[in-house]
Amino acid sequence: MHHVDVFRIPCRSPGDTSGLEALVAAGRIVPSEIVAVMGKTEGNGCVNDYTREYATNMLTACLGRHLGLAPEAVAQRIAFVMSGGTEGVLSPHQTVFVRRPARGASGAKRLTLGIAFTRDFRPEEIGRRAQIDETAAAVQQAMRDAGIASPEDLHFVQVKCPLLTADRIAAARARGCEPVTADTYESMAYSRGASSLGIAVATGEVPLAACTDDAVLHDWRLASSVASASAGIELMHNVVIAIGMSAQASSELVVAHDVMADAIDAEAVRRTLAALGLQGAQDLDRIVNVFCKAEASPDGQVRGMRHTMLGDSDIHSTRHARAVTGAVVASVAGHGMVYVSGGAEHQGPAGGGPIAVIARA
Amino acid sequence: MHHVDVFRIPCRSPGDTSGLEALVAAGRIVPSEIVAVMGKTEGNGCVNDYTREYATNMLTACLGRHLGLAPEAVAQRIAFVMSGGTEGVLSPHQTVFVRRPARGASGAKRLTLGIAFTRDFRPEEIGRRAQIDETAAAVQQAMRDAGIASPEDLHFVQVKCPLLTADRIAAARARGCEPVTADTYESMAYSRGASSLGIAVATGEVPLAACTDDAVLHDWRLASSVASASAGIELMHNVVIAIGMSAQASSELVVAHDVMADAIDAEAVRRTLAALGLQGAQDLDRIVNVFCKAEASPDGQVRGMRHTMLGDSDIHSTRHARAVTGAVVASVAGHGMVYVSGGAEHQGPAGGGPIAVIARA
Amino acid sequence: MHHVDVFRIPCRSPGDTSGLEALVAAGRIVPSEIVAVMGKTEGNGCVNDYTREYATNMLTACLGRHLGLAPEAVAQRIAFVMSGGTEGVLSPHQTVFVRRPARGASGAKRLTLGIAFTRDFRPEEIGRRAQIDETAAAVQQAMRDAGIASPEDLHFVQVKCPLLTADRIAAARARGCEPVTADTYESMAYSRGASSLGIAVATGEVPLAACTDDAVLHDWRLASSVASASAGIELMHNVVIAIGMSAQASSELVVAHDVMADAIDAEAVRRTLAALGLQGAQDLDRIVNVFCKAEASPDGQVRGMRHTMLGDSDIHSTRHARAVTGAVVASVAGHGMVYVSGGAEHQGPAGGGPIAVIARA
Amino acid sequence: MHHVDVFRIPCRSPGDTSGLEALVAAGRIVPSEIVAVMGKTEGNGCVNDYTREYATNMLTACLGRHLGLAPEAVAQRIAFVMSGGTEGVLSPHQTVFVRRPARGASGAKRLTLGIAFTRDFRPEEIGRRAQIDETAAAVQQAMRDAGIASPEDLHFVQVKCPLLTADRIAAARARGCEPVTADTYESMAYSRGASSLGIAVATGEVPLAACTDDAVLHDWRLASSVASASAGIELMHNVVIAIGMSAQASSELVVAHDVMADAIDAEAVRRTLAALGLQGAQDLDRIVNVFCKAEASPDGQVRGMRHTMLGDSDIHSTRHARAVTGAVVASVAGHGMVYVSGGAEHQGPAGGGPIAVIARA
Repeated sequence: MHHVDVFRIPCRSPGDTSGLEALVAAGRIVPSEIVAVMGKTEGNGCVNDYTREYATNMLTACLGRHLGLAPEAVAQRIAFVMSGGTEGVLSPHQTVFVRRPARGASGAKRLTLGIAFTRDFRPEEIGRRAQIDETAAAVQQAMRDAGIASPEDLHFVQVKCPLLTADRIAAARARGCEPVTADTYESMAYSRGASSLGIAVATGEVPLAACTDDAVLHDWRLASSVASASAGIELMHNVVIAIGMSAQASSELVVAHDVMADAIDAEAVRRTLAALGLQGAQDLDRIVNVFCKAEASPDGQVRGMRHTMLGDSDIHSTRHARAVTGAVVASVAGHGMVYVSGGAEHQGPAGGGPIAVIARA
Repeated sequence: MHHVDVFRIPCRSPGDTSGLEALVAAGRIVPSEIVAVMGKTEGNGCVNDYTREYATNMLTACLGRHLGLAPEAVAQRIAFVMSGGTEGVLSPHQTVFVRRPARGASGAKRLTLGIAFTRDFRPEEIGRRAQIDETAAAVQQAMRDAGIASPEDLHFVQVKCPLLTADRIAAARARGCEPVTADTYESMAYSRGASSLGIAVATGEVPLAACTDDAVLHDWRLASSVASASAGIELMHNVVIAIGMSAQASSELVVAHDVMADAIDAEAVRRTLAALGLQGAQDLDRIVNVFCKAEASPDGQVRGMRHTMLGDSDIHSTRHARAVTGAVVASVAGHGMVYVSGGAEHQGPAGGGPIAVIARA
Repeated sequence: MHHVDVFRIPCRSPGDTSGLEALVAAGRIVPSEIVAVMGKTEGNGCVNDYTREYATNMLTACLGRHLGLAPEAVAQRIAFVMSGGTEGVLSPHQTVFVRRPARGASGAKRLTLGIAFTRDFRPEEIGRRAQIDETAAAVQQAMRDAGIASPEDLHFVQVKCPLLTADRIAAARARGCEPVTADTYESMAYSRGASSLGIAVATGEVPLAACTDDAVLHDWRLASSVASASAGIELMHNVVIAIGMSAQASSELVVAHDVMADAIDAEAVRRTLAALGLQGAQDLDRIVNVFCKAEASPDGQVRGMRHTMLGDSDIHSTRHARAVTGAVVASVAGHGMVYVSGGAEHQGPAGGGPIAVIARA
Repeated sequence: MHHVDVFRIPCRSPGDTSGLEALVAAGRIVPSEIVAVMGKTEGNGCVNDYTREYATNMLTACLGRHLGLAPEAVAQRIAFVMSGGTEGVLSPHQTVFVRRPARGASGAKRLTLGIAFTRDFRPEEIGRRAQIDETAAAVQQAMRDAGIASPEDLHFVQVKCPLLTADRIAAARARGCEPVTADTYESMAYSRGASSLGIAVATGEVPLAACTDDAVLHDWRLASSVASASAGIELMHNVVIAIGMSAQASSELVVAHDVMADAIDAEAVRRTLAALGLQGAQDLDRIVNVFCKAEASPDGQVRGMRHTMLGDSDIHSTRHARAVTGAVVASVAGHGMVYVSGGAEHQGPAGGGPIAVIARA
């Protein structure tokens, strides 16, 4: 079994690897033990956000030097999930997960994680059943990799998934295949939605039979309470990170999760902290990071009041939603260096989303 | 003395006056008693936000019909303050203040308000001492109009102030006068800043001698804890609304204020509610409205973590700030139909801003 | 038959009617003779562009005063088509079409125009066959109103059509009907597309049988070379303006049209001017206005080079396209006070669009 | 003397070096002969545009592998100028300049170029006299490096210059120094302006004595007709590329330049092509690339018509200007894979800018 440690590293720009380099130089992070990196980068988090692939490219180059590997080989052994968009008080940073053999179980359940990758998707598979199926299989593989025995011990599943570009749409059509949408921004929602249904199938929250192509982005009753999906231009497959607990794990960290009922559900943030025994301001420095999803409620209202996010043609709704939930989480957790990702389709209830906190035990 | 009542009316679009019309038709609002209207509209809240003047024009036309006055005459007797920008969960609405003779004082201090207008400014006066001086005088006039005896009873001063456009800059230069800035967006900050220093002079929080041209947007130690200023393209003078309490007033409403130390200071929101005796979820429906200011901290950090709002060339920082503080206030007050305005220069501490709550006693 | 005159009036803001008022005061425009107004306003031209309804509301109020009519009655007798978005060098203005009985035909074909309105659409009808059918009928009615005998004499058909909002989508779903899309920005394209197919049916360019629901935004071979459609939030029906020529008309103006093959087809602009006998710089002041459509080529390329407009999540592609074609037209016609509207689905070839010029004979 | 060759390479993303790699693999480009790379990248071209440093980092890594050098060493021997913003029809690409010893002069003047670097600037030097002085010296050094004997043979000077960020402003203030502006977007204009005045001093177009701090961005009579400056977040010094002609050079290429009087001056584009003997459509494939600058006219008008670019708080004026001039150049030169850079302060007349064309002789 695993001993997992987690480092949150501030970044000065999307390409900044100096914080990681310093921890490696200090011997606190051993590059060969890195399993996953989740980052928040400065871009718009939408289609033309190149800060995600910029960050990934700089990380694979940096780690490739330490590991003696080509960048492509690095990307095949470490799960990189860069989420664009640091609207409002969100602060760019990277969360580095390292894993080594367990030192002997602590007796209590402790943090563990595993990763998996799907095959590359064809453009016309994105947002449809093929992506659901492959993701479900990859989640189960990542759970096995983590040593997470049952869905009860699974607290957060992060997926990085592809999006459609004009080029990819044209390529599909040239082969006579019509993608799920011709709108590149909307394709992000489809990809996140199908990936999240894949997670829900793996956890047993949703039966596979319900996951038809038509259900994606339509049947909001289908959802996972531990799913978090981010789409990006920089890949054509899904990357899966399964985060949970195991009594065999020897980490000094623990994780808990809950569900925000809407984008301003501060009470859910407090409940999640409380589940880890964090009660007041004095306990906040035990938090390693908060991970959550945000979206503009698809019915156009938050607690009965009309919002304007869905009709805003200057700022996409995912950007608004990150600003909102990032601010709410920051107001409870103490600051904005947290992982809040936009677009919560089939991730928690419509308008809300899952939240997880990793903290020192 | 006055009896003041306050109505919060949802709007379906910036030009929607149907809610106001319905309250007039029902006899709940008497048009001749309306003293001020403060609105949140759907625009970007920046230079090219025409939703503010659209809302004002529809209101003056609507009330002009009821009052038998030309729209221009309506704008001279009622203070209209439209604040653009409903980012995140903020919900478009109007707050209508009506005033009639007091029915006999209640014994306790109750809500009152007064209004005043400055003369029109020349473009080169905006953001400079002339605007400070005229605003200070107008605030004192509005306090007298309200029957607010001393600054201790003053809880919120709302100013609507002009901004520079390319036309206005060119007109000043044609006369040989250089405006304070040639950047139209930045002129909004200068206008809000000088107006807020005028408020601070009127309340005695800042000595007049400190308010040099150079101090505007530079000496952040100079600030008012009750100032709220919004700039707009639709006027060339300042409109002032003074909101406070008086033992001679007979309103069934009360007001309290506090200062948010930063954009995510949920504790200040709770303190303000507590000052009015509002303690838990069951008391939230006594809130009539919350009024507060938001800004991106000018030092580039919130609680020690870097934010990216000041370097974002896609979304102006005032838009980010409204999304953040609107979400934090909504997470405490229960929903987003609140008045959160962006750009808090010299309004509370750098990065924070004043907050006021009007509630049923 | 008709005698038509056309006035191009600069606007200082979306609500500015002073230019129109001045022409009325000078006796040059008789309000009761106004048939149509086409405007370019400062907004984003997308979903949350309230400058269109602001301009329309100020015009109906202004003309209502002159005509002794309620604003709603004005909107029923005059066709108002406000097109948002003055990106780049485009300059906000209004084109006012007035019509009185012909003074006796000139012998040569001269400008004429007619208008018509469809019924209100239900949200689920937008972008589908019902909108195509109703538009086709309205175009034929507008041609009869204009006295345009055959499609050969029809040079430009302007349609203003509705879009979907979160409210409208929710209303349709509450009745069990699914709109053509849940993406409000995309609904503008569907509405423009179906309206343009309606025009193509009316002109005989496309057989009605080809206009299935599935053809809208998919079969780009179906198009009209005289169609121009703009979507807006301010209406639920289609407004149609048919512009053409008649030997019975007595106008001093003429109109010609052509088709831009792509967004930078300056040669098509020159051809259209040449068709009216306008050859060099000295003839440009005979132009009354240029009307054309612009779009980002849906295949992601312009003349073989990749463009980035379709993947830009900060600036919608219709905004880019207006900036491009507006600049190209201005570089030929001499300045940017021209009517360039974005979104040319089924209006000319994919990536291009119709262009028409009205000039003094 | 030099033999210079120039390659225009399409890019699929800001980090795409595959086109360059292919030319190296084919032996057409020898990495050690590369002197400069000028690129157009997909970003917003404003403060938070990381596509510029992303492209530069990928290029230095790529060339470092070929040259056996660290990326930092590559950046010290090759001038990289990445210009963000491909609005409208502009197409992302890189122009690679290679230089080897002349094969013997052709007899006629042919293309040559040279480069130079200034020292790093302190934040408070940006936009002020120190930047002017250092740039002027570097331009003269680059001319010597190019073998350009006199300013008459100098046709285009490209400068890449730094901008202010919140961090850099704070650092200056911590040392008691006030930068020229606290607005990060505006700092780009100051940096371009001072750099361009430095070019004007080097060419003799402007006397050094006129270049006071106050003249920058104020005295628009001071300008260079060959200056092109782009600001970026990725450096703190100025990079200078001097492009001109020499009778000693043996290139098969030639260069000419002219000045666009305003953003839609298609005639200037045609004049520049004509100066190289390019007359009609059949000659366009002799063009290697077009280089020009664009800006929104600071007086708010283009050819007497009001534009809205300076008051647009959703899209910065440099973005509008690139879309406009890119479209006009593309309409003449045949497509949008050209180098059009925004912000033409002191670069040609107010509202216009220099244009240069490199073509096969």
